[in-house]
Amino acid sequence: MRRGWARTATGRTFRDKLLEAGGRNESLLCIGLDPDPSLLKGTPVVAFLQAIIDATHDLVCAYKPNLAFFEALGTGGMQLLLESVRSVPKHIPIIADAKRGDIGNTDRFYAHALFDIYKFDAATVNPYGGLDGVQPFLDHADRGVFVWCRSSNPGAADIQDLELADGRYLYEAVAEQARAWNQHGNVGLVVGATWPEQLERVRERCPDMLILVPGVGSQEGDLEACVQAACDSSGGGFLLNASRSILYAAGGDGYAKAARKAAQKLRSRINIMREAVLARR
Amino acid sequence: MRRGWARTATGRTFRDKLLEAGGRNESLLCIGLDPDPSLLKGTPVVAFLQAIIDATHDLVCAYKPNLAFFEALGTGGMQLLLESVRSVPKHIPIIADAKRGDIGNTDRFYAHALFDIYKFDAATVNPYGGLDGVQPFLDHADRGVFVWCRSSNPGAADIQDLELADGRYLYEAVAEQARAWNQHGNVGLVVGATWPEQLERVRERCPDMLILVPGVGSQEGDLEACVQAACDSSGGGFLLNASRSILYAAGGDGYAKAARKAAQKLRSRINIMREAVLARR
Repeated sequence: MRRGWARTATGRTFRDKLLEAGGRNESLLCIGLDPDPSLLKGTPVVAFLQAIIDATHDLVCAYKPNLAFFEALGTGGMQLLLESVRSVPKHIPIIADAKRGDIGNTDRFYAHALFDIYKFDAATVNPYGGLDGVQPFLDHADRGVFVWCRSSNPGAADIQDLELADGRYLYEAVAEQARAWNQHGNVGLVVGATWPEQLERVRERCPDMLILVPGVGSQEGDLEACVQAACDSSGGGFLLNASRSILYAAGGDGYAKAARKAAQKLRSRINIMREAVLARR
Repeated sequence: MRRGWARTATGRTFRDKLLEAGGRNESLLCIGLDPDPSLLKGTPVVAFLQAIIDATHDLVCAYKPNLAFFEALGTGGMQLLLESVRSVPKHIPIIADAKRGDIGNTDRFYAHALFDIYKFDAATVNPYGGLDGVQPFLDHADRGVFVWCRSSNPGAADIQDLELADGRYLYEAVAEQARAWNQHGNVGLVVGATWPEQLERVRERCPDMLILVPGVGSQEGDLEACVQAACDSSGGGFLLNASRSILYAAGGDGYAKAARKAAQKLRSRINIMREAVLARR
């Protein structure tokens, strides 16, 4: 195993599990499971995702199903999610991309659903409701809670980049709040790859927190700048997510093989850049 | 029908439907459907909610199921929601309290689920992702989109009350963005009842938008101040939501009868206060 990968694992917390899976597969790549029926060309969702997982599980540190895509499958959607991720090996963590967030009494139920019923290893949450909204997630100390901080879409600036009276941008204040919420060491951040300078500002403020970076695939973030910005002092502390660019790499038949190839390529590009960052330090 | 209630209805948009239902029942009361198994004392969720709906549907302008409570029922949760609201008369709108929000490509799927599959009349959304996140909801011009603006929980201040460089609070900026997003006239706001002064600031900025006000029941907002602050120039333009204080009014047997009594009382308190506000104008 090369420099910088975790060598031991306790398996007790999400972070341990993520580091172990990443070390075992020498990967900082997370694959997003976003089944879009219009791109599946008739393949059933479960068969499609199971084939993707079978073809890639030795190349990733985590999988990230996006709940919107399963909710859009109707009342059976969450059952299809469960069946799909049954193929994920036990040692690979599953992050529920749900962006849930409400007042505390409601989030007790969202956290219960995602962590106790569906048993996801981690979830993304929306910080707009403040601490008591996020608390029911945080209280599951063995699970990961990724606070949505700065996203990779064009409209992100509308709210997240509003400038505060103290000179910070809103997303910087959210990053600092998330750091304060991190009493159990289980809080991470979601920061999009489209603008690496924002990733850098967040990393400065939160040197020790996990950062989940979506948008390196079809959203065309600058991969090298992202790796540079996201690396913590040990050369890790982040995971990069790609969804569409891997799931739909073939655009039809041979999707599993094409997904494997795309995942191999992206994993190794990330690793090369990470080695370069480590070498410069 | 008394002064201020809608007399005609086209039934074409969520707003029309809401005004018609409110006029017919002379009610600005929305009942939140939040089934908490620990409070149901063994009554099955569907039977409980159907009994609540049967006992109150002539007293409300809308029902608001909170999706967290159904997600926490497991993979069958959304099916239970559909079965529960089958009892809601066709002319009463149903608002999905989901607080969904993500980047645009993901929200296409959330909006599709809530509006096309489940056919809810309206939904609550989270503004953190900015316009392109909310757009797929807005594009359903016949449905209502309530942007989460200022909530009623203790932690709301953590993010929503951050002061911006231009002197506004964040929630005021969100209210103004939502007004700008209101191209199809289908955007409303969620503003909690706990602090009427915030409701007032939002109403000033958005004189014509619907405001959904949760927190008048167990969260103990000051009802009179809320009605005063939420009323638009016609004496309407808002709906007040109560969940726990109605669903669990009896705390056990006789819950439907107790819910009806609690709903009657709250509906008429709201109407009396509204009449007083109108009389002072």
